[in-house]
Amino acid sequence: VKIELINTGSELLLGRVLNTHQQWICRQLADLGYEVTRQICVADDGPSIQAAAKESLGRADLVIVTGGLGPTSDDLTRDLIAQLFERKLVFVPEILKKIEAYFAARKRTMPPGSKGQAMVIEGAHVLPNDWGTAPGEAIVCERNPFSPAGAKAVLILLPGPPREMRPIFMASVLPLIQRELPLRSPFVCRTLRTAGMGESMVESKISPLLQPLVKQGLEIGYCARIGEVDVRLIARAGAAQAIVDSAEQIVRGQLDKGLIFGVDDDSLESVIVERLTRLRKTLALAESCTGGAIANRITNVPGASKVFMGGLVTYSNESKANLLGVRPESLQTHGAVSEVVAREMAEGALVRLGTDYALSVTGIAGPGGGTPEKPVGTVHMALARRDGPTLARLQHNNFDRETFKFITAQQAMTLLREQLVS
Amino acid sequence: VKIELINTGSELLLGRVLNTHQQWICRQLADLGYEVTRQICVADDGPSIQAAAKESLGRADLVIVTGGLGPTSDDLTRDLIAQLFERKLVFVPEILKKIEAYFAARKRTMPPGSKGQAMVIEGAHVLPNDWGTAPGEAIVCERNPFSPAGAKAVLILLPGPPREMRPIFMASVLPLIQRELPLRSPFVCRTLRTAGMGESMVESKISPLLQPLVKQGLEIGYCARIGEVDVRLIARAGAAQAIVDSAEQIVRGQLDKGLIFGVDDDSLESVIVERLTRLRKTLALAESCTGGAIANRITNVPGASKVFMGGLVTYSNESKANLLGVRPESLQTHGAVSEVVAREMAEGALVRLGTDYALSVTGIAGPGGGTPEKPVGTVHMALARRDGPTLARLQHNNFDRETFKFITAQQAMTLLREQLVS
Repeated sequence: VKIELINTGSELLLGRVLNTHQQWICRQLADLGYEVTRQICVADDGPSIQAAAKESLGRADLVIVTGGLGPTSDDLTRDLIAQLFERKLVFVPEILKKIEAYFAARKRTMPPGSKGQAMVIEGAHVLPNDWGTAPGEAIVCERNPFSPAGAKAVLILLPGPPREMRPIFMASVLPLIQRELPLRSPFVCRTLRTAGMGESMVESKISPLLQPLVKQGLEIGYCARIGEVDVRLIARAGAAQAIVDSAEQIVRGQLDKGLIFGVDDDSLESVIVERLTRLRKTLALAESCTGGAIANRITNVPGASKVFMGGLVTYSNESKANLLGVRPESLQTHGAVSEVVAREMAEGALVRLGTDYALSVTGIAGPGGGTPEKPVGTVHMALARRDGPTLARLQHNNFDRETFKFITAQQAMTLLREQLVS
Repeated sequence: VKIELINTGSELLLGRVLNTHQQWICRQLADLGYEVTRQICVADDGPSIQAAAKESLGRADLVIVTGGLGPTSDDLTRDLIAQLFERKLVFVPEILKKIEAYFAARKRTMPPGSKGQAMVIEGAHVLPNDWGTAPGEAIVCERNPFSPAGAKAVLILLPGPPREMRPIFMASVLPLIQRELPLRSPFVCRTLRTAGMGESMVESKISPLLQPLVKQGLEIGYCARIGEVDVRLIARAGAAQAIVDSAEQIVRGQLDKGLIFGVDDDSLESVIVERLTRLRKTLALAESCTGGAIANRITNVPGASKVFMGGLVTYSNESKANLLGVRPESLQTHGAVSEVVAREMAEGALVRLGTDYALSVTGIAGPGGGTPEKPVGTVHMALARRDGPTLARLQHNNFDRETFKFITAQQAMTLLREQLVS
């Protein structure tokens, strides 16, 4: 099954918003063994949308188009696709009733443009929207009019807002795809997530031993991000599961246990919350330069409240002293960015929040604030433990401000994670 | 100038990573008046990359390809583009020396695959990489071999990691584009950022009065995000600046002053830091359900340390009592998610951190924890002020966990921003 994804919206091509649809939709499909072969982003003007849809239908069995179903004048997708298929738009009173109810429930007056959202392309399946106004639509053609092969083709239209698109996709689109375009062979994909070794080193360690499996159809992919490298193992056809299982064993045998922190959707924060929960241990945070980034990531994990007692974001010297009990002498003698202060921050948080672990970071994010002895990027981090001595670590992260915060959070969470691996 | 952007990488089509290149590159180009007409994402296999590059060159004057210049075996872009142009790869000793120096400076051994990164397509300009290993490359053709028109065409290859791609783009790519493909007419784009009114309402308020300017060439775009609607005003050709200026005046006249919180790159957090700095006021935070998300956003703004003294992430009842001085009776009588507790949290933070303002949020993020009286999504927020009574607000945000945190942070920052508008 060849799949193409078309995201419409001038704001995407003007760089005003991040296209999160691509990752999300591709991910949902890949998890079921469907692979998107191409993704395209075009402006929401008439000719661009029609040309892209026609080209995609010429290459693919399934084309998914997002955006342009809203109530304003630049929402043209519905009309243009109807035109492309030479079909009329028909008014569906039930949809209008639902839209009216949506506004009534929120005590808002329905704007006039919303009526157009009750128009549906003739013969299309309606994909109900219980999370907003415009429903999705699916055109199923037994013979693709735009491909010389003329095989079965499906075109799906979805509204742009993620909190409407995502539930419609799960509730209506995936079942429709599995019904209309079922997969013929199995597909297994496993991603091993590593932190602490570069991409080339990871490849040189595992690639030679995986070659026999590559000959049997294993595909290996590497994806390097800041402080992390993913190893992706894919196989299709009959023995897919066995091939991926063997490959995983080989990779785990070659890489140090501490290097692989999880699989597939695991993140450092989800692994930490899971381990702390299993060990019945609690955590506190004392963040200076990361400014709440670690707390934010930990609390993104459902169930974090069972293990995470609280955090302190102590940006100023006074707050380090008042809230964490860092000694003014330490601040004066060693400076706020020092191992001594990092240790006192962690130990202060441990005592004040009565937890088993407390993690602290203090550093210079930049762009200002560096000195010759402590250049921008210097970070001290410490892990205080109820049942052992405090550990400290020094890092140099000379990056832009947001990257600095991200990588520092990664390193601090790694310091904690290492202690949770039994 | 027609521009197409090709992002390569199977991890993008498998949905393993978010494509941040698209937004970033489109944005840099749009700010200079260059518009990307299409963005394409293909897997990093041979036929896909070659086919996409050839098609794009058939439509566009400038094609930018990201990814696939790394040292591992799935990095094929350089070879495939050379093949497409029927050119050889040549070894450049200076690039290898630079790569060797990169590894030496980091005390890491150079992996063998890195040598391939010193190969350059014959006749291509080298775009130096001072932030990683593989340099970018630019092929400038006086006559586009893939387009019947045969006009001038430029193809640019860039490495995938953002922290390498971005500085190369700024240092080498933008100057090259402006030199080789200069713009012929002016371009003005202004985005007004609003919070607190729906997309249709915004359009119905401003659209009628803008029609005369639309006839003169004004383009209006709307982009709705959670809790925000952007109004984008674009004009090209001679009177572009005057048209956009007039349009902005009309929009500002039609929308309530409090609705427009900023322009272009402004964010709620950057506006808050800027206003607090100008007013010489300081801020503290007491976050429960947002778990550090507000502190994280505020500290993303350079210079935040001047106005943001610190924050407390009080996830447990004990930490609300111990760290903020919330009274145990209040927690017992009203519950942690209540106006009384929100007020005590904000007032506790104000006193403990000695600031002018302190913002608090307490709510039920879900998925668990709701009751009939306080369903999932209930949020109480409060703003304590040194020079006035504490303000409180109740919101109902029934969304998934991360959306809940985001929209709650938006509303809390809006409560503060309203007080900073004089």
